[in-house]
Amino acid sequence: MASHAQGTFAGTSLAFNYPIIEVYFKMKRRDFFRNSSLSLLGTSLLSSRSEAWSEPLRKDKVARNVIFMVSDGMSVGTLTMADLLLRRREGRASTWVGLYQDKRVRRALMDTASANALVTDSAAASSAWGGGRRVPNGSLNVNADGSANKPILQKFKAAGKAVGCVTSVPITHATPAGFCINNRSRGDQAEIAEQYLGLKFDVMLGGGREFFDKTKRKDGRDLLAEYEQAGYGVLLDRAALLGLDALPAKPLLGVFADNALPYALDAAQDAELQKGVPSLAEMTKAAINRLRKNKNGFVLQVEGGKVDWAAHANDTAGLLYDQLAFDEAVREVLSFAQADQETLVIITTDHGNANPGLFSDRHFDRIQHFKHTNDWILNGIDAHTTPAQLIERVEAAQGYAIRKEESETLLSFYRQRDESGLYNPAKLPFKPLGVIQSAYTGVGWAGTDHSADYVELTMLGPGSELLKPFVKNDELHDLMLLATAVASRL
Amino acid sequence: MASHAQGTFAGTSLAFNYPIIEVYFKMKRRDFFRNSSLSLLGTSLLSSRSEAWSEPLRKDKVARNVIFMVSDGMSVGTLTMADLLLRRREGRASTWVGLYQDKRVRRALMDTASANALVTDSAAASSAWGGGRRVPNGSLNVNADGSANKPILQKFKAAGKAVGCVTSVPITHATPAGFCINNRSRGDQAEIAEQYLGLKFDVMLGGGREFFDKTKRKDGRDLLAEYEQAGYGVLLDRAALLGLDALPAKPLLGVFADNALPYALDAAQDAELQKGVPSLAEMTKAAINRLRKNKNGFVLQVEGGKVDWAAHANDTAGLLYDQLAFDEAVREVLSFAQADQETLVIITTDHGNANPGLFSDRHFDRIQHFKHTNDWILNGIDAHTTPAQLIERVEAAQGYAIRKEESETLLSFYRQRDESGLYNPAKLPFKPLGVIQSAYTGVGWAGTDHSADYVELTMLGPGSELLKPFVKNDELHDLMLLATAVASRL
Repeated sequence: MASHAQGTFAGTSLAFNYPIIEVYFKMKRRDFFRNSSLSLLGTSLLSSRSEAWSEPLRKDKVARNVIFMVSDGMSVGTLTMADLLLRRREGRASTWVGLYQDKRVRRALMDTASANALVTDSAAASSAWGGGRRVPNGSLNVNADGSANKPILQKFKAAGKAVGCVTSVPITHATPAGFCINNRSRGDQAEIAEQYLGLKFDVMLGGGREFFDKTKRKDGRDLLAEYEQAGYGVLLDRAALLGLDALPAKPLLGVFADNALPYALDAAQDAELQKGVPSLAEMTKAAINRLRKNKNGFVLQVEGGKVDWAAHANDTAGLLYDQLAFDEAVREVLSFAQADQETLVIITTDHGNANPGLFSDRHFDRIQHFKHTNDWILNGIDAHTTPAQLIERVEAAQGYAIRKEESETLLSFYRQRDESGLYNPAKLPFKPLGVIQSAYTGVGWAGTDHSADYVELTMLGPGSELLKPFVKNDELHDLMLLATAVASRL
Repeated sequence: MASHAQGTFAGTSLAFNYPIIEVYFKMKRRDFFRNSSLSLLGTSLLSSRSEAWSEPLRKDKVARNVIFMVSDGMSVGTLTMADLLLRRREGRASTWVGLYQDKRVRRALMDTASANALVTDSAAASSAWGGGRRVPNGSLNVNADGSANKPILQKFKAAGKAVGCVTSVPITHATPAGFCINNRSRGDQAEIAEQYLGLKFDVMLGGGREFFDKTKRKDGRDLLAEYEQAGYGVLLDRAALLGLDALPAKPLLGVFADNALPYALDAAQDAELQKGVPSLAEMTKAAINRLRKNKNGFVLQVEGGKVDWAAHANDTAGLLYDQLAFDEAVREVLSFAQADQETLVIITTDHGNANPGLFSDRHFDRIQHFKHTNDWILNGIDAHTTPAQLIERVEAAQGYAIRKEESETLLSFYRQRDESGLYNPAKLPFKPLGVIQSAYTGVGWAGTDHSADYVELTMLGPGSELLKPFVKNDELHDLMLLATAVASRL
């Protein structure tokens, strides 16, 4: 049973409710707050429970930076299989699991529910972290009664920190948006692209160019030009990102694909994709290098967004190789944080998805040699593909031959369609292919949607002492504000 | 990176390899070792790395008792759904998850692999804990080369501790057996029942009467009589267990069902089962009350074995209500351990199974009102059951009406059979029923077998400081010996 401290922030009338049993360091008034309207966790709170703060203040207990990493839709089986894949291929643990050798790391199980459902969507999940309150599924920091919760990157920006987001899906997608903006619905990404314009956040990198591009937007607005006019540097390919250090310090928008970035495994096989599209780790490194120049520190969200997309599609190769791409980004973050020593690192997921598992050893090592995802396989065939051609395509992509009946079953999903109809990517037979593949990989799937599973959460660095072994997603909002001594909810 | 200490035990030539980074308390020579051939973790080890033992010895850091609790085959979705069910029905967390409010609790992810597979079976998993070495699947503390690893309850018994096992499946089943005996194969439970006879372990409670009963054993041996002749008290029903305090102190064998005990939910609906069969919590409480009388402490394994059976059968009601029955046993254990303060409690599972998850909220609250398991539904019908009768049976058991086509599908599995053939319980259509039920419960399943998922592990009490955030199953063997200062591997 944690006891709770009730306090009032100077400058606000908002009651602040936090379990004080874990709060054992004194908040330090930082210089950059002196001329700000933002408030600190005040002495009123400290004096009321002085015994809880008996430990002497240590400078390293205040986090200057926060890096919040989300492998979206990562069930524990995803974390496990990616780690096992790496151990068997390279004889080393994943960076994430390898961290658990370090006693300074703290772990929790996180309850991921939203305001109206045990099974959250990514918008509500990111809003719980980003706005400090659970909201209904589909909403970005807007409550059921229409009231809004101020997104955390706006708070940190106002407090003088540099802020940004990095993702492998559109930068306008739910998980980055939940840290940035208020919107009753996550659906209108073209509108979210407009909302970002006024924020002047320091680094926004990912996919979603179509939502900024005048030729793709329904309203014909040239948002890329508008961002440039507003003082942004706009990056459209990997070379621009890698040459970033030469650019002057101004806000950055990078959109490296029309919609989501390609799966890491497919990109690795395609010279053109490699040239045009940076990896999640490269974007993360570039973002950190840019953000760290701010004298008051920074806050960055990093999302491995296609882990979730692969889970929805029961796509083993997409899932595990994008989880490994996320793990490379974790490595970049740790490399910075371990040298920096002033960064709170949070590594987690927003919810389980599809609850995949390895149910047989027999063919697991096959996955090491996969060249392409199911996404690549199914997007490359059509109603005219023959069973033999599909068998060949699967073998080229993943090294095993499916049976003729299996090939015919998959093709039947293409042939049933009305030839006059528009091609609809959502109708590809991902689930049937996942079922067929189970016999060739040993990987099974419990569904094609998010699950209510409690999920893995890891913290290290200053402020990680605040973590309880079981947390609700919305508690992380206050934790980040406390860890950085930016305890305001304006 | 944990560094390792190499040491040799007095009286043995066995090198002892343990990550010393976590070992920061001095082992204390216990009185009961003075006249024993068993050895302690010697001063040679301490002196070689003296800085690691710089903390002063505290008496409370040596565990007098160990209680090792296994919810067999528990994926994280099982833990989650049982906790959510309880929160929604009773407004309280499960005892297990509720523990995470307590900072003294330590958690780890556990790698559950066996010597020859990423996906372990329960025999190899229990042997890893019980014998300290991973063995091939199917084996009980026998290595691939035929050599044997001494089971931990034999070590603790020789060290003067009272020892025992409690389970909801046959007491001769893999998980208890892995702490007790050596056998190349888990399969012959009649032979395992003989192996237990000579051990004189203090409390063995569960199911499996058929392996002791002369009318059921192929060899006609009356093992129940032989146990009594050997000085055991033999308990055959709940009343005998509940009246245990009146019995003289002698070793106890309790077998309360021919094979596994009934599922907790089915037992709750059946007056006769309630009269004859104790709950896991009742067996646990009785075992502790008996074992605690030993002046040198005790070691007890408690297994919720039917959680695994329900997962194999994709049986939501069996799974969640037996997980809650396990949670009641956790509550009994904590009630003792919190008062006792000298007990290391370990709560975990041996492997994932079926990776179930809640994928939709819509019907989750229905499960609160379930009266019977799928096991009860499918064992109560036959080839002569009509679709209407099956629809009625499902509705009586679980409160929703399946469609006529679904009922016909299930019945087709009975009608396809050769009527002259023997009835085979393993052929019941559990998986098709699990698939059909998903639409009525929101619970999905990724398979019907064990998974390689890293699993949840919790420790509290003296010795729990030894736990690393990521452990391999076989490391727990030495941890228990270290925590109790019984550091021998004879």
